[in-house]
Amino acid sequence: MSSSAQIVMGSLATGEEMFALVKELYPICRSITGNGVRQTLQRLQREIPLRIHEVPSGTPVFDWTVPKEWNIRDAYIKDSSGSRVVDFRNSNLHVVNYSIPVHSRMSLADLRPHLHALPDRPDWIPYRTSYYKEDWGFCLSHRQLSALPDGEYEVCIDSSLEPGSLTYGEFFIGGETEQEILVSCHICHPSLCNDNLSGIAAATALAQQVASRPRRYSYRFLFIPGTIGAITWLARNESIAPRIRHGVVLSGVGDRSPFAYKKSRRGDTEIDRAFVHLLRFSGREHRITDFSPYGYDERQFCSPGFNLAVGRLSRAPHGEFPEYHTSADNLDFVSAESLVSTVALCGEVFALLESNCAFQNLSPKCEPQLGKRGLYRAIGGSADAGHQEMAILWALNLSDGTNSLLDIAERSGLDFQSLHKAAQLLEEKGLLRRTDQTFHAPSDAGRLSQ
Amino acid sequence: MSSSAQIVMGSLATGEEMFALVKELYPICRSITGNGVRQTLQRLQREIPLRIHEVPSGTPVFDWTVPKEWNIRDAYIKDSSGSRVVDFRNSNLHVVNYSIPVHSRMSLADLRPHLHALPDRPDWIPYRTSYYKEDWGFCLSHRQLSALPDGEYEVCIDSSLEPGSLTYGEFFIGGETEQEILVSCHICHPSLCNDNLSGIAAATALAQQVASRPRRYSYRFLFIPGTIGAITWLARNESIAPRIRHGVVLSGVGDRSPFAYKKSRRGDTEIDRAFVHLLRFSGREHRITDFSPYGYDERQFCSPGFNLAVGRLSRAPHGEFPEYHTSADNLDFVSAESLVSTVALCGEVFALLESNCAFQNLSPKCEPQLGKRGLYRAIGGSADAGHQEMAILWALNLSDGTNSLLDIAERSGLDFQSLHKAAQLLEEKGLLRRTDQTFHAPSDAGRLSQ
Amino acid sequence: MSSSAQIVMGSLATGEEMFALVKELYPICRSITGNGVRQTLQRLQREIPLRIHEVPSGTPVFDWTVPKEWNIRDAYIKDSSGSRVVDFRNSNLHVVNYSIPVHSRMSLADLRPHLHALPDRPDWIPYRTSYYKEDWGFCLSHRQLSALPDGEYEVCIDSSLEPGSLTYGEFFIGGETEQEILVSCHICHPSLCNDNLSGIAAATALAQQVASRPRRYSYRFLFIPGTIGAITWLARNESIAPRIRHGVVLSGVGDRSPFAYKKSRRGDTEIDRAFVHLLRFSGREHRITDFSPYGYDERQFCSPGFNLAVGRLSRAPHGEFPEYHTSADNLDFVSAESLVSTVALCGEVFALLESNCAFQNLSPKCEPQLGKRGLYRAIGGSADAGHQEMAILWALNLSDGTNSLLDIAERSGLDFQSLHKAAQLLEEKGLLRRTDQTFHAPSDAGRLSQ
Repeated sequence: MSSSAQIVMGSLATGEEMFALVKELYPICRSITGNGVRQTLQRLQREIPLRIHEVPSGTPVFDWTVPKEWNIRDAYIKDSSGSRVVDFRNSNLHVVNYSIPVHSRMSLADLRPHLHALPDRPDWIPYRTSYYKEDWGFCLSHRQLSALPDGEYEVCIDSSLEPGSLTYGEFFIGGETEQEILVSCHICHPSLCNDNLSGIAAATALAQQVASRPRRYSYRFLFIPGTIGAITWLARNESIAPRIRHGVVLSGVGDRSPFAYKKSRRGDTEIDRAFVHLLRFSGREHRITDFSPYGYDERQFCSPGFNLAVGRLSRAPHGEFPEYHTSADNLDFVSAESLVSTVALCGEVFALLESNCAFQNLSPKCEPQLGKRGLYRAIGGSADAGHQEMAILWALNLSDGTNSLLDIAERSGLDFQSLHKAAQLLEEKGLLRRTDQTFHAPSDAGRLSQ
Repeated sequence: MSSSAQIVMGSLATGEEMFALVKELYPICRSITGNGVRQTLQRLQREIPLRIHEVPSGTPVFDWTVPKEWNIRDAYIKDSSGSRVVDFRNSNLHVVNYSIPVHSRMSLADLRPHLHALPDRPDWIPYRTSYYKEDWGFCLSHRQLSALPDGEYEVCIDSSLEPGSLTYGEFFIGGETEQEILVSCHICHPSLCNDNLSGIAAATALAQQVASRPRRYSYRFLFIPGTIGAITWLARNESIAPRIRHGVVLSGVGDRSPFAYKKSRRGDTEIDRAFVHLLRFSGREHRITDFSPYGYDERQFCSPGFNLAVGRLSRAPHGEFPEYHTSADNLDFVSAESLVSTVALCGEVFALLESNCAFQNLSPKCEPQLGKRGLYRAIGGSADAGHQEMAILWALNLSDGTNSLLDIAERSGLDFQSLHKAAQLLEEKGLLRRTDQTFHAPSDAGRLSQ
Repeated sequence: MSSSAQIVMGSLATGEEMFALVKELYPICRSITGNGVRQTLQRLQREIPLRIHEVPSGTPVFDWTVPKEWNIRDAYIKDSSGSRVVDFRNSNLHVVNYSIPVHSRMSLADLRPHLHALPDRPDWIPYRTSYYKEDWGFCLSHRQLSALPDGEYEVCIDSSLEPGSLTYGEFFIGGETEQEILVSCHICHPSLCNDNLSGIAAATALAQQVASRPRRYSYRFLFIPGTIGAITWLARNESIAPRIRHGVVLSGVGDRSPFAYKKSRRGDTEIDRAFVHLLRFSGREHRITDFSPYGYDERQFCSPGFNLAVGRLSRAPHGEFPEYHTSADNLDFVSAESLVSTVALCGEVFALLESNCAFQNLSPKCEPQLGKRGLYRAIGGSADAGHQEMAILWALNLSDGTNSLLDIAERSGLDFQSLHKAAQLLEEKGLLRRTDQTFHAPSDAGRLSQ
């Protein structure tokens, strides 16, 4: 087990603090490898004791190979007068991520195939990558592109694509058992706020919160490049995967859309049901979607060879909002409130998972006499049983060792919290006993894929 | 097995006779113990050969203890002029049920905490109990309460709360097998009509009907105080419980609301499905509700240590109608028609359970030739097969030994009665054979809780 | 295995050719036995190498007996002036099918019970039969019937009902395996177009199509008299029945109503799901109905002793359209377009069944790198993954050996064809391997009746 210090150095207790972190990380030019990622992770080390891993280029990871490391110093297109008409120093989105070095002069006609813009969104710069095909290019607003006169241009991308390493961060927080809750976010996007920085900020704050509280589960927070990072981590940690009992990928959690939870491939795991239950009881608008093999790193965690209980929490749906993968996914697009409520929801889910278990009713034949234990209204005959009393009755009635508190919540229509409180009360009074196997033998262990 | 005589003495064949019984029992001050219950059961003995059981105070029954016996002779509040402003002789609801004896003088201010009224229903007297907390009190209409001038009052409750016994009635009617259908009603409420008297009258009439007809099942009718009576019976009859194959609690079956059937905890037992099927085919408005651990004695029969196939038949929903537990639950609130249709529905359910079984098609390869057996229209080619012919075809097609007639009714959308008639016809013609195990190995025996 | 020649002689490639076949067969007076059936099958032998079977009258077939053979030469009712007021030569529907010979004079009053008409449809001649009750009768339009004056009539039915045989046609087309797809249609109706001729024409065209294409499955086409023909075939071929993996009864497939697919008794067999899937993706209006034991020969194939995976394809619902079993089911009632689209749909279903199988993802841990295999868009970051790419991702994600392509289509919401194409591509690239057991161990083998 990791020896990660359990001491949390920073504090991201408020939405403003999370937002400030997003703002600080915004200018860095991240990619799936390189110094932008290192710089980002080093900043996070001031918040949480992140362990930074370096995996050499060329390392085989399942069907893939860790790519060469990419770094960039500068990039521009100069017009004939020598002035920068496209300038990496203005926005790191201007260069196609993973562009190979180039420095030459060429006509607009020859340059044109290397230029990417969005005619529908004339003021936005698109975000493009070319990780696995050695190429180069620039992204610019359609307005900029349209204004370029014919003529010769100087094109320069001062980048390097060389053997190096892939960098990722990991924070393991030990709990009472080896069984883990996994939280994963991607760290591979340059100046995009909702897409990567929101998840980074929320995961960091959540890690601080988790580390400061008692817990049964161990927790593992991954800050990894999308796709290749998840694949690399899984390839290096195959033996850990079976310990991951629940997991969630955080991505796009900072914008102002309602929550969207995407279920794991299995579709009915405890974490799926926990998110569904808490979102329904939140009274807030939200969307629940079934698993599909398109999206973020849930694709890897839910690949058939792993099939982990990993869902995804987002807000604006992946790829369906216009700001997605453009310069409009900027600081205005995310809010402190959204970040803080994301952390709050995940905290509630973890609290549910921590306290979900099955109980055995120790007085299962008829109802036990609640009155003599102070669990029942004193004067009988009134027309309505209170909410807490209903929770007590449901907890007693369904606690035959086969139903978890979440099962009881789902069947009764009551909120988990009330049932948990009722079960605690009944446990104190000696009427319920926690069944040991609940935690160690996951209720969904027997559920095979699909 | 009980040696209860199978001879029925009385006859409650009509709604008017049932209503007359309700009327006769109405004035009696019943409670969970005491002479009111005895008097009620003795009256029922003129209708059915009820066996009356007495269980001594102090007897442990699971988590409970049989309480002291309560009896009351008189109770009043006299004003300073000596006139009874609240008088038990006018309504036995005026005294909080199970009030300990009291005789003293006190100011209105001191008396006030002992007075219960319903501000929203100024003319109704509420019904209140204090079974398990030794206390006393009066119930009165809000109008009465508001009219009480300040001053001194004489308060008298001439009751006794002493070791005695809990009384209940039981009528067992043997059938071909030891497997039982249980009918239970509560007998512990004073002058409340729908709440307790309707169930008592309907159960009594139903017992007469059952006793007069041939039957496979044995039947057991319980007339018991709510909660403590069911607990006491179950504690004394644990060995009988496994024989209870189907059961229904009758409560609140005399008012004019549509039928409401509440499913057993298991939710899909044969009696649940029988009630659902017959109510749907009745064409009458009705409600089907899922089990919840709040209500009447289904709470005890469906506690996890028993988990019996016991549902509940009611009309106005438990606790949700304004007259509930007030003086407005009086003779006007119940009707002869409602009582008689309750008995009719239960009779249909029992008839279904009696005749539900699985058959084996003895000519399972292709359809047998119905025509040569007179089971098919003579002239072919007409556009529509008749209803009875469809029942014959369904019964043949699904009688592979795994489907009961009720299963076939549910899948075909036909009514049970037609399928039963078809199966009988096919049995006569040698095309179906009853599968023996159906009755003795309940189809839902393998279904575990939840 | 049959040695039926695999050579197809005729060609019914177009709707017009099918319609022409219907037209040619229309005047023949078919019945469940007799020369009309033989003449029909002989005509079909010019299209496909049909084997004609003759089963002697009196042969026991399960609960039934092959009936006497019926043939008819002429039939009429002559009025007192000697002119034919009802004439078999005008329509073979005029005589009740299977009428015994009669030649006598009688009053209208005595004749009346033998006359059948449709008061609601005064111009139509009804179709009536009396196969299993020796009787005779005439069918005529209500207008004709109303116009008959009182008086004496000469009644003549020049038929014979004598020991002979029941005739049916069978065309077996061997495939790679012994497992079969069954196509059955009825051939027992006289001049009725949608009811019997549409199925005959579609089945013949489909047989030609199947015989001309490569196939895994063997196919068996049955041209049989309704009910008794199916029973006779099943009785003589009990050992073949277990090889029938999928089947469809074609009946009433020539009219202009939307397709109606009726599921097999099992309800979720592969052919049921194939029809449902393809009809849904067709974008065409259609109806899916659950199995019921009323209809055409699916009744026999789905009898509990066989319980085969045989559904039924129709258009206008059986027995629910006014033209059913009347002279209005004529050449105007069917269309070439309907016939051709029926054959097309069945062809698509068979293609789906031929190519449906389960695959094993050979790179199941994380996604394989599609880009290096040319399976992925080159420039990343664009907002939307294409349809074919989604099919590739779904095929990879769910190919864990337990899901067939149809399972994946159902879960993903994608069309089978795209998934099949994706799977083929992935198989070529070495990323998927067909699991051998899929075809030989049917995915629904374990599903019991009901």
